[in-house]
Amino acid sequence: MNKICELFGIKYPIIQGGMIWCSGWELASAVSNAGGLGLIGAGSMHPEILRDHIRKTQKATDKVFGVNLPLLYPQIDELIQIIIEEKLPVVFTSAGNPAKYTSHLKAHGIKVAHVIANKKFALKCVDAGVDAIVAEGFEAGGHNGFEETTTMTLIPLIRNTVDIPLIAAGGIACGKSMLAAMALGADGVQVGSRFVASIESSAHVNFKQKVIEAKEGDTELMLKKIVPVRLLKNTFYQEIKSLENERAGISQLIGHLGKGRAKKGMFEGDLTEGELEIGQVSANIDSILSVAEIVRNMIEEYREQLKRLPQF
Amino acid sequence: MNKICELFGIKYPIIQGGMIWCSGWELASAVSNAGGLGLIGAGSMHPEILRDHIRKTQKATDKVFGVNLPLLYPQIDELIQIIIEEKLPVVFTSAGNPAKYTSHLKAHGIKVAHVIANKKFALKCVDAGVDAIVAEGFEAGGHNGFEETTTMTLIPLIRNTVDIPLIAAGGIACGKSMLAAMALGADGVQVGSRFVASIESSAHVNFKQKVIEAKEGDTELMLKKIVPVRLLKNTFYQEIKSLENERAGISQLIGHLGKGRAKKGMFEGDLTEGELEIGQVSANIDSILSVAEIVRNMIEEYREQLKRLPQF
Repeated sequence: MNKICELFGIKYPIIQGGMIWCSGWELASAVSNAGGLGLIGAGSMHPEILRDHIRKTQKATDKVFGVNLPLLYPQIDELIQIIIEEKLPVVFTSAGNPAKYTSHLKAHGIKVAHVIANKKFALKCVDAGVDAIVAEGFEAGGHNGFEETTTMTLIPLIRNTVDIPLIAAGGIACGKSMLAAMALGADGVQVGSRFVASIESSAHVNFKQKVIEAKEGDTELMLKKIVPVRLLKNTFYQEIKSLENERAGISQLIGHLGKGRAKKGMFEGDLTEGELEIGQVSANIDSILSVAEIVRNMIEEYREQLKRLPQF
Repeated sequence: MNKICELFGIKYPIIQGGMIWCSGWELASAVSNAGGLGLIGAGSMHPEILRDHIRKTQKATDKVFGVNLPLLYPQIDELIQIIIEEKLPVVFTSAGNPAKYTSHLKAHGIKVAHVIANKKFALKCVDAGVDAIVAEGFEAGGHNGFEETTTMTLIPLIRNTVDIPLIAAGGIACGKSMLAAMALGADGVQVGSRFVASIESSAHVNFKQKVIEAKEGDTELMLKKIVPVRLLKNTFYQEIKSLENERAGISQLIGHLGKGRAKKGMFEGDLTEGELEIGQVSANIDSILSVAEIVRNMIEEYREQLKRLPQF
């Protein structure tokens, strides 16, 4: 049996990326109902909002689902307490050291996956005892690694370094790329951008529309001086670009970012001044579909493509 | 039968990237003898040197081989004349408009493939009547596209745009990544960095050693103001990086580049002041092997990995 399906008790090894402002209870429950693993993106939620989303997801599906937890979140201890109280079975952690919370979560029977973008952190994950690693390539949306290693290069590198279950992320939005990820040595895939452009995602409709209109070259990895983040090009992006071209310092960049930019862009639909985080693969996405259709299409294309692979 | 094998009359759809200073007659003939398609990298050759390499390759193999021709080469017409005189069956063109020479080459019975990094040029290739497209991702070594689209994103995008035979390039150095490229919809792969670190490549041994020592994050896409090129980090790279950070103009950058940097680095082995072009996947390469071993390992790993792919 597939290691990721076995680990989480799911039908298909398709993990929905837990993305801020885009993945609430509707998306998470729809993905779990479709046979994948839905994740509530806690990074944009106050603790009691998270509890509410967990309870709504529990009502909307009898399948397993989890929470994505960026470890830099200021109220992290409160979020973890809620996750334990609500008896969530799965947590995906990111943006931090996996050594910090893994054993605590595991002591409560929670399966832990951690997101990394290089070999060093893959090894840290193994030391920390995580159950699975998500290895995320340069093409992924949102926060990203400094090395700029792409999925094609990263997955074989990590596969040849660690033995634990491995989930590929970055550039995966169709059955072809899912199959490619498995060929590279992954046991499963994490899909972000494709689920942003779903009916059930909590992204603002303006943002969803912008995602399906995006073409190649319409995203860029920015803010490399702080934490690299892949942005869809808009006025806000241009402002950051200008500041970076003028060699603005970190404090000036943080000052311009201000607060609430991501909410403004992705949740409130301000396509001009909001921060729009999305993957390069948005260039390959041209329709807003239901989660059920997305998963069905992905599995069908996977099957067809698998049959087409030549033997030598 | 596989389209690329059929088109070129080869056993495995493995094309050796025609790389300046690294791919002379020894590499090209070794790859063709191993069942792939060897390409002489004409971009670093004076016309009569190219003729010499063609004749030596003809002596060293009875298999088909070709030439890679960067269209920006100053003595391009002389090179093309030699290719026609020597009755070469295959030309891979890059760095230019495929409309310019394709029909001329095809009128002489030559099969033409052209290297692109975006959809616009893929469509131009179809209009120009090329026989195959090489789609090259951001992770590839040497010259690269402005859009920074990775192989994982680019191949399905191009596959869904054009029907002609498609060769994936960028990040492919093992059987896993070869299989992944085919899963993404490619009919074949172009392999560069892995063949640089072969016994038969004409790269200086210092450079080969540096390639196998390279770790993740050791290459970066530079000179985006002129033509993006992926470089291995060394003193020369640091100098370019400093100039770019100081917002140097194009003429200043070109002035610093000067002449002969690539030869100095890759052919003469000056790892300090020379230009070292290599792919991100150098992080995954840790041995200098014979071409026969490289191809054999790649095909063996491809077969093993194909058997391992899960069905859903």
